[in-house]
Amino acid sequence: MTHLPLTSLDGVTALDLPAFDSAAAEAATARQMQLTKPPGSLGRLEDLAAFMAGWRGTDRPRIERAQALIFAGNHGVCAQGVNPFPQEVTAQMVANFAAGGAAINQLCKAAGADLNVIALDLDRPTRDFTTAPAMEEEDCLDALQRGAAAVDTDADILLLGEMGIGNSTIAAALAFASFGGTAQDWVGPGTGSDADGMTLKARVITAAVDKHGALSPMMRLAALGGREQAALCGAVLAARMARIPVLLDGFICTAAVTPLFAADPDLLAHCLIAHQSREPGHRRLAEAMDKAPLLDMGMALGEGSGAALALPILKGALACHNGMATFAEAGISGA
Amino acid sequence: MTHLPLTSLDGVTALDLPAFDSAAAEAATARQMQLTKPPGSLGRLEDLAAFMAGWRGTDRPRIERAQALIFAGNHGVCAQGVNPFPQEVTAQMVANFAAGGAAINQLCKAAGADLNVIALDLDRPTRDFTTAPAMEEEDCLDALQRGAAAVDTDADILLLGEMGIGNSTIAAALAFASFGGTAQDWVGPGTGSDADGMTLKARVITAAVDKHGALSPMMRLAALGGREQAALCGAVLAARMARIPVLLDGFICTAAVTPLFAADPDLLAHCLIAHQSREPGHRRLAEAMDKAPLLDMGMALGEGSGAALALPILKGALACHNGMATFAEAGISGA
Repeated sequence: MTHLPLTSLDGVTALDLPAFDSAAAEAATARQMQLTKPPGSLGRLEDLAAFMAGWRGTDRPRIERAQALIFAGNHGVCAQGVNPFPQEVTAQMVANFAAGGAAINQLCKAAGADLNVIALDLDRPTRDFTTAPAMEEEDCLDALQRGAAAVDTDADILLLGEMGIGNSTIAAALAFASFGGTAQDWVGPGTGSDADGMTLKARVITAAVDKHGALSPMMRLAALGGREQAALCGAVLAARMARIPVLLDGFICTAAVTPLFAADPDLLAHCLIAHQSREPGHRRLAEAMDKAPLLDMGMALGEGSGAALALPILKGALACHNGMATFAEAGISGA
Repeated sequence: MTHLPLTSLDGVTALDLPAFDSAAAEAATARQMQLTKPPGSLGRLEDLAAFMAGWRGTDRPRIERAQALIFAGNHGVCAQGVNPFPQEVTAQMVANFAAGGAAINQLCKAAGADLNVIALDLDRPTRDFTTAPAMEEEDCLDALQRGAAAVDTDADILLLGEMGIGNSTIAAALAFASFGGTAQDWVGPGTGSDADGMTLKARVITAAVDKHGALSPMMRLAALGGREQAALCGAVLAARMARIPVLLDGFICTAAVTPLFAADPDLLAHCLIAHQSREPGHRRLAEAMDKAPLLDMGMALGEGSGAALALPILKGALACHNGMATFAEAGISGA
């Protein structure tokens, strides 16, 4: 169980974190060149093998254990009417996860991932960030540590997701604070907002970023984020400490970790974006973070669904990497 | 074992083939609207569930049995020097498939598909299509029937792929004959051609299409195709007769079935393009056939690798479709 050595949120940039093992990645790439296929013909699967090699620190990385970790939280900003669904739905969906009835349950089973769901004080929403910081630094650090503690350090890959009524507004606020532009650039329909709803969301996040945008990147996480966003940041850091690569889900999950990116882009070097969400701000976010999503299926569900759907792509990449014969082994003629 | 009731290649348009079951597809879509997620939030996975429902003729389609079927052939046009690899590589790769050392072996194992590889008279290449029709109609029909016979009619999904040194030139010729444009539009590096190699390929297919392009679509399959292309067409038709949807692999596999498309686009209505190949002509081909590939991983390997990589996406779609709770079952509040 990982506890991060942090006494303040801004301390994340001073953490002593493992670096990418270039020698292992290069050895993996050298192996790819000898496998029975035209060099480069497995495209991105070859890059994924090298990525996994560098972070796992071995030229023959495997995925034997995959953990999907979903954090749920509730948000005071719902008082502004940013979401058509009532906040009780967050707890109802957590119950649905526990009962095995949600999309993420089916996708984890299909892809071979263990699912853990952590509900973070759902009966105690954060504060409405239009009137006050959503969390005190101490509350935010606590949620971050709870996220870190939930990471299975024996896993080979971590899939991250979230659930929280109102959290597409949180995501838009964090992305806007991290990358600028206009509020409209980051706002989308979320769970079902119409044009009026999106106008309202843009007004709400403009007010919030006016109020809290001048804070440091990690203090903006406290002021604008929710507990599940802080927990996602903590899980990303704990995974890094254990050299576990991360598959981030869509818009909300990616936006949740933008405070880490804004503090230091290297904090997310071990993270991939699993899929391109239909939520319009996600394309802009992926570009700003220079991370090309693996899949583009027009999804916008959250709860880690895109991450679980992408897991078989990574597994396929490593199955080829580890299982294929070399040209020499197979006795195949060269060009 | 399917035998197609054909006495001529042009007879494909007169086959009595099952149609899409719209009632089953609509019932599947109605179920999707009740599952515990915002309507439409699973994006393309919802469309895939309806597609599978319509072709399998049930509102609750499942993939219990997946067959991957790879056809291999050799081509007289290699005499023109269109491929840097010697033709023996086709048989060597077939041996690699049999020994379990190729990418497709690993990807089928990872995705849970049975793999069957059919080598079609590798010691007897088709004729060089720049000088004569590659096959007589009878030879082409024979290869088509061998393709049909290889389909496991108990499968729920068919994955198609191919292997054949020189067959990116065959593919470009078939695509050019079916959809026009210029020869350069359809030519790419294939297994490893450089700019001079691509110029040569364009010259070769221009000559071939000048010679054989005025034939009927299916007679162009005989004149320009190879045995593996004819077998792929036969497998597509046999799958349709058994209401089995098809995942086509990349450029060569998609181009192989363009004669069917040119004869009647409905002959491919049960087919999906599994992935967007890096081979430049594939994007144009997918657009001309109005079939958006499921994945885009920069791959260009063939042998069904993209189809096998996409199978978990389809399985994930059906896992959600069949396994998720409805709002009523989960007791979740509405908007």
